[in-house]
Amino acid sequence: MMDHTHKAFDSDLQELGRMVAEMGGLAEQQIVDAVDALSRRDLTVAQRVIAGDTRIDVLQREVEARAILTIARRQPMAVDLREVVGSLRISNDLERIGDLAKNIAKRVVALDSEFLTQKVMRGVEHMTELVLSQIKDVLDAYARRDLAKAIGVWRADEGVDAVNNSLFRELLTYMMEDPRNIGICIHLLFCAKNIERMGDHATNIAETVYYMIEGRALADERPKGDTTSSTVVPFDA
Amino acid sequence: MMDHTHKAFDSDLQELGRMVAEMGGLAEQQIVDAVDALSRRDLTVAQRVIAGDTRIDVLQREVEARAILTIARRQPMAVDLREVVGSLRISNDLERIGDLAKNIAKRVVALDSEFLTQKVMRGVEHMTELVLSQIKDVLDAYARRDLAKAIGVWRADEGVDAVNNSLFRELLTYMMEDPRNIGICIHLLFCAKNIERMGDHATNIAETVYYMIEGRALADERPKGDTTSSTVVPFDA
Repeated sequence: MMDHTHKAFDSDLQELGRMVAEMGGLAEQQIVDAVDALSRRDLTVAQRVIAGDTRIDVLQREVEARAILTIARRQPMAVDLREVVGSLRISNDLERIGDLAKNIAKRVVALDSEFLTQKVMRGVEHMTELVLSQIKDVLDAYARRDLAKAIGVWRADEGVDAVNNSLFRELLTYMMEDPRNIGICIHLLFCAKNIERMGDHATNIAETVYYMIEGRALADERPKGDTTSSTVVPFDA
Repeated sequence: MMDHTHKAFDSDLQELGRMVAEMGGLAEQQIVDAVDALSRRDLTVAQRVIAGDTRIDVLQREVEARAILTIARRQPMAVDLREVVGSLRISNDLERIGDLAKNIAKRVVALDSEFLTQKVMRGVEHMTELVLSQIKDVLDAYARRDLAKAIGVWRADEGVDAVNNSLFRELLTYMMEDPRNIGICIHLLFCAKNIERMGDHATNIAETVYYMIEGRALADERPKGDTTSSTVVPFDA
């Protein structure tokens, strides 16, 4: 690229990075608020989370539009192109994380007055903490282009699954003990599933950060032997 | 665009359309096979669905790569650009539908030997038929750029939700009646949720087809007052 093109491209990249960071911050806050609303049965906070998702959706479309304009105007190659494609992919994952937080907030509205034990909530909260720290780490890895940190997040995926499985068994026991627990436990099962899937998106983002830096897929196999999102067509082939 | 550019662009578009159509066909088959594997407890078919998801993932990356090269090389504007962006968005939704089919296949493996009533399965199958016909219609609407058909799919979303709600209540009753049903019913609840979400992606695709043709969002509000994916930044603003 020519010098003035490179300057314009750098400013495009900066703006993309800023928008992705804003999306990441919003997504984190939505998760915190959604699980807080669930713990405290706070309908006001739940409604705020549901309404707040729109901002993340708008940002995703803005990242898409900006990424596409950047590609059309600057025709970046190799690592420059991967930077743009990476922000596009990460914004998709963050938008999905926002949706999942909204799903939890919707459950709060559906749950309404059903009784909820503090003990079960603790499992959900523990899982949320794990996933939030993964998301925080992977957004850090993105912001600093930190390869080691991205790989760390990618490897930590199994921890969330273990907590989810033990929560699942706990909820199953409550349901078996007393059929009156079934309704609430099903809601919590779906909430836990939503949180687990946020962790999957954090793993996807880790793969994207790796790809942005290295120009190839993180590994031929994801943890758990699931190859879902590790297949990458390299742009600089 | 100049004439030779337009010719090259048309062939790019054709190839994108072909890849999206292939993804759509594969996604439909994966849904049929996954629910068939669930009904008949066929582990072999389930494993095939799980393995088959990789092909859809690869195609999605190929659509992404081709779309980006097309934007960089041809710098399309207005409706031309929306065609490319549309195929990118639709391939994302089809990839997600593939994942959801894979989720169902994974449940078949987890279910293993648990007893399953034919009656409950009928509800799941009915829901699947509804969603499959939505996906078929929306892929048709995409292939023919059929605005009326896209709007029809977008409006049909509520039918799936109604079936899902009645299935949910039915499963809840089984669980209340006999705690031994709880395990299997939870698996089916998650399967039903996966199918419902496939329907959401069909709705997203309908919105994208509308956007490709009209250059604006289908409506300010989605059915059920959920604005999740109707926010669109127009490229030709």
